[in-house]
Formats: sequence, structure tokens, C-alpha cells
Amino acid sequence: MALGFAIDARDGAARAGRIQLPRGEIRTPVFMPVGTRAAVKSLTAGQTKAAGASIILANAYHLALRPGVEAIEASGGLHEFMNWDGSILTDSGGFQVFSLAPLGRVSDEGVEFRSHYDGARMFFSPESVIDMQVRMGSDIIMPLDHCLPYPSSESETSGSVQRTLSWARASVTAKAGRPGALYGIVQGGVFGDLRARCAAELAGMELDGFAVGGVCVGEPAESTRDVLSHTIPMLPEGKPRYVMGMGPPADLLACIGMGADMFDCVLPTRNARSGYVFTRRGVVRLKNASNAKSRDPIDPDCGCETCRSYSRAYLRHLFNVGEILGMTLATIHNVAFFEDLMAAARTAIIEGRYAEFAACGIDGG
Amino acid sequence: MALGFAIDARDGAARAGRIQLPRGEIRTPVFMPVGTRAAVKSLTAGQTKAAGASIILANAYHLALRPGVEAIEASGGLHEFMNWDGSILTDSGGFQVFSLAPLGRVSDEGVEFRSHYDGARMFFSPESVIDMQVRMGSDIIMPLDHCLPYPSSESETSGSVQRTLSWARASVTAKAGRPGALYGIVQGGVFGDLRARCAAELAGMELDGFAVGGVCVGEPAESTRDVLSHTIPMLPEGKPRYVMGMGPPADLLACIGMGADMFDCVLPTRNARSGYVFTRRGVVRLKNASNAKSRDPIDPDCGCETCRSYSRAYLRHLFNVGEILGMTLATIHNVAFFEDLMAAARTAIIEGRYAEFAACGIDGG
Repeated sequence: MALGFAIDARDGAARAGRIQLPRGEIRTPVFMPVGTRAAVKSLTAGQTKAAGASIILANAYHLALRPGVEAIEASGGLHEFMNWDGSILTDSGGFQVFSLAPLGRVSDEGVEFRSHYDGARMFFSPESVIDMQVRMGSDIIMPLDHCLPYPSSESETSGSVQRTLSWARASVTAKAGRPGALYGIVQGGVFGDLRARCAAELAGMELDGFAVGGVCVGEPAESTRDVLSHTIPMLPEGKPRYVMGMGPPADLLACIGMGADMFDCVLPTRNARSGYVFTRRGVVRLKNASNAKSRDPIDPDCGCETCRSYSRAYLRHLFNVGEILGMTLATIHNVAFFEDLMAAARTAIIEGRYAEFAACGIDGG
Repeated sequence: MALGFAIDARDGAARAGRIQLPRGEIRTPVFMPVGTRAAVKSLTAGQTKAAGASIILANAYHLALRPGVEAIEASGGLHEFMNWDGSILTDSGGFQVFSLAPLGRVSDEGVEFRSHYDGARMFFSPESVIDMQVRMGSDIIMPLDHCLPYPSSESETSGSVQRTLSWARASVTAKAGRPGALYGIVQGGVFGDLRARCAAELAGMELDGFAVGGVCVGEPAESTRDVLSHTIPMLPEGKPRYVMGMGPPADLLACIGMGADMFDCVLPTRNARSGYVFTRRGVVRLKNASNAKSRDPIDPDCGCETCRSYSRAYLRHLFNVGEILGMTLATIHNVAFFEDLMAAARTAIIEGRYAEFAACGIDGG
């Protein structure tokens, strides 16, 4: 196995674990800040580390287009390229191909599309997607999967599950003997039996972890919750469980309560760049006039560089006049907030008070 | 005196000195990175410090408009507001009033103009400009001066010198007994006798340092050089001498050779944000294809965070895909380059080899 996983404590369905990877141990539950194009937007690698991140997500689709796999290989791999000595999970970019790329055409062999940068014709197969992630030096590799938008019919969704499973098998074969852990992705839309079939089939493959994909793709929040509460418990118990692309703090806590271990989302970084920052007492809009003369930090209980050193009045000023530094400082805080939230959830699980912790209420939607 | 100045060494007309200010000692020659709106663009205070800056420049005009003097006072002053524990020189903004503000009207009492943000009517007098800089807690205060564009006639320029001198006297009176050092600004355009008259009159006032203003306002490079070589030696010998707004490294070295001690310019920070970085071997354009697979730092001899940690290939990628981090990393390097250049000039002066050092050639224009 390219990855070790140990569960330190359980509290109900919630688990506190440790994932062993070549560049260190990941304590779970864990939040992975998104560094789509080999940079967590506006942060240096040092700032991302200092905010508490142990693993980040990068996107193989974006990086294959720019700067290209060869340039990353020539730099000694993705970690060296971006000066990140923590772990990296690379998303295959299947989701981006289906949502960003014009003229995408799916066949059993893979997906043909045009680069959203310059229109160049590209083809991703399950094998090529594995190959490029291995060459980039990814620690955790996500296979090509077929993710449909909401709404999609049951028969379309069934077809996408079949394709996802077929691609997963091809991915296992392509990855065999090469470095990096490989996860499987459960698709199936809002159809419980399709999710169940997909999870059951994947469970029989040589995979290092299991992800729930195809959530938060436009379906109502209630459906998302139903799918997750149905699907997460079906994922193999002894492997890391990853809910892809989910961000609101209350939703993360709910998923942890269902037994999920890993998360990623652009929410903390994207919202930060608009001046929306998270606290345990709710979202703060930094541009609000109420912050004009406030010498308080965003959150007096937060130990991040931003809260240690900068006032709300200063942050408001930076956003008001359009200084980039405002984005950087807000991003540092939001990443620290998500990392701290995961650390606190872990402690609560270990101390057997997770239900109480998760119910305390976070207005972070 | 609100400022102490000692000259440690001389080499020809060049001097290596130390300026004593409440928040520490400034070793000269010194370059002040520009933080117009209370932020050195894209850098945290810690990054600016780590790049070697001991004093930065902020702009009273911009800050008086946003966030306003009251908001800065409410934060405990500009240092507290922006979390900068080094020294701060505030420019009065006279130059910005004349160059940015629509409908500016100058009288002996001051200048009336409209805010470039919202068109609000504003009036700056020599007294109000001192008052707002004192209230912001500036370490070195620049008075309101009358800066003309190039070309201006000799009689217009003579009038601006008279006004600048009259405002300087009013500024000395307004500043008396209040904290902060006050500099005088020599105007006079390209007219040697006007420059001489302005310098001589200012030398008789209770001022802590002397600046050459109104250079690099559109005149030919040769005129700039003539004005500086004529004016710098006329500034009082025992006080700091500051050439305002000059940036090209070769020009800074020439001015140091003429006896100047202090500089500020947006050049390192602005050029960084376009991917232009300085090295002792010349300017590097980070976007150049030649950097695509380069694992080298910008400059192997540079000890800045960027050169210690990031390759040209990565920096090129960040600029190519428009990641903000590229601007931050390039700015860190450029600020460090200017600070290192000043430190090297200082060492060369102390070791009596300044002419040789300055002649070694820097392609940084």
C-alpha cells in the first residue's frame, strides 16, 4: 500500500485517524486547501504551512495545460516546483473537464476536450491521467471519473457509474507498481442504489482510499445531505474517506459525524479574496463600516498571523482600496480557521464529545 | 531635534551614515519601499522587514482620503495600523495633488482639489498637511511643496519656489513642539539658480533633513543628472539628504556618489508586479520562455525568501497563469535587491572603494 491509515479514536461514526504518506503524517479529519495551479491563491508555501495545512490539493487538469507535466517533471516534481514539503493530493480534473472545457466528448476510452486557455485539442484517458499524476509526484492520485451535472436521469447516471467503474479498474492497472496512493471515487448522483453499487464495486478494487464525488453539483442541499449520509457509511471502514469539494463548516462537521476523514474546497480561499472571513461566531464581512475603527483582530481566539498582527480596521482599509495584501491576510486567516476547526473536531472525537462539539453551531454557510 | 544623524564614513562625496529615529536606527544610504496606502503592495509587514527594509514611505494624501486621519488615529497611529515596527516617512502628497487630483487650484494658502476617489472637495494647507502627518505618527514628515511638471517656464518655476519656501516656513511653525522630524524640499525645476536659492533659504530653517523634489517629472535624463549633481552638494552637509522618487539602480548609485543618503521609488514594487526583477547581472523578465524549465532562483547570490525557495520556472508559471503569489514573490526579491544594493554601497563607502563599486555597472534602468 502506498499509504498507511490508522484510526486512533472513534466517537459514534466519527473517526480520528492518521494517514501515513512519504512526506509526513496527516492527522484526520483534515481539510486540504486548494492550490489548483500549484499555488494556494495569494499564499507562499510558508504561509500555507504556518496556517496549519499538512496536505494541499492541486489540479492535474489545470497543471497539465499550464505549465505542462514536462515542466513540472523538469523541476523535480510538484513538491519541488512549488516548494511545498507537505503532502499533495492531485485531483484528476475530471470535474473540470466536464464543467470548464468546451466541446468535451466522452467515450469509454476517455474524454476529448479543448483547453480552456487556447482551445488546443486534448485527450484524457484513465491511463494518461494516472500517468501525469505519477510523473508530477503526487502523494494521493485521483482517477478520471465521470461526473454529471444535476439534474441527470437515472439511466444517464447509471451509465456514468459504469464508466467511472471501468475507468477505476483501468486506473488501478495503470498505477500498479508506480508511486503514489490511488483513491476510488463514488459517483451515482442522487440515486441511492447507484451510489451503493458504485461503492460496493470500488470496495473490491486495490485502492488506498475512497471519495464521494458528484456532490454539490447543483442538487438541493437536502439531497446532498441524503447522498452523503447514505454513501459515507458504505465506504470501506479501514481506509480514508474523502468528501470532494464540500466547504461550509457546518457541512464538514456533519460529514465528520457520518465518518468522513478528508475534505477540500475553494470556499475559505475564494471567500477570503472577497473579504469574507470565518469565525466560530459567524462570518465577518471585512468591508463593513462597523470595522472602520476596530482595533480588534478578526477573531481574538485565533492564533494565525493575521489575527496576531492585524486589526479589522486595517483589513477593511486594504479591501476598500484594493490592496492585494488584504486577500493574503484574509486567506491566511480562513485557511487557519478550517485547519483549526479540523483539529478541534479531532480533539472532540478523541475526548468522546463529538456530538456536542458539532452541535455547538457554526454560522459559516 | 527630532532626528539624529551621524556620518560614519566618507568616500569622495559619498557618505555612510546613521539616522536615529524613535523606532530604531536607519543605516544610510537607505532605500525606502513605497507603501502609498499603508501597505507595501502585496507584502506583509513581516515580509517587508525580512526583505531588509528599515523605513518605508507612506503617502499622507492617499491616507487622508482613505481611510482618513481619524481612522488611523483611532488605531493608535500609522505604525500600529499597518503593524510596521520600523520607521515611516510620510510624503505630504503635494506631488499627488498636482498630478492626480482633478481641478487642483493653488493659492498662497494651499491647494484646493477634488478627491480622486469620489470627487469630494478637499483643501490642503501647509499647516493641515503637517497636522495630519503628526496625527498619523509619522517619523519623518514632508511639508506641502509646489511641484511643477516639466516643462515649466523660469517665471512659473520661480513662483513655485517662492511658494514652496513660504509653505516650508509655515510648516516649521506648525510642526514646532510636536513629534516627528521635518524635512525641507528643494524645488526649482531645471533652473540652477532657482535650485540654489531654494536650497540656501531652506538651509536657514529649523529642518531635520533636506530633499530634492521635482526631479523625474518628465525632464530629459541629462537634465535630471545636471539638477542632482548641482543641487545635492548644496544641501547642508550635516543632515540627511533625500532624493525623492528616483529608482533606477544606476541612478541611485550616481546620487550616492554625489552625497545623497535616502531614496524612495515605486520601481522595485511596480516592476515586480509585472514580472520584472532586478539582479546584479541585469533585469530578468520572469515570463520569458527561457525560464520555463529553470530550477535556478532569480539570483543565486540573493538571500531573499524568494531566491532561497522558488525557481524561475515556478515564478514564470505563476505570472503566466495570473497567480497573485507571483507578484508577492517578485516584490520580495526586488525590495531585497534594493536594500542589498544600499547595504553594499554602504560597505563600499566604509571600505573606501565606492567609485569602483558604483562603476561596476548595473543594468537596471
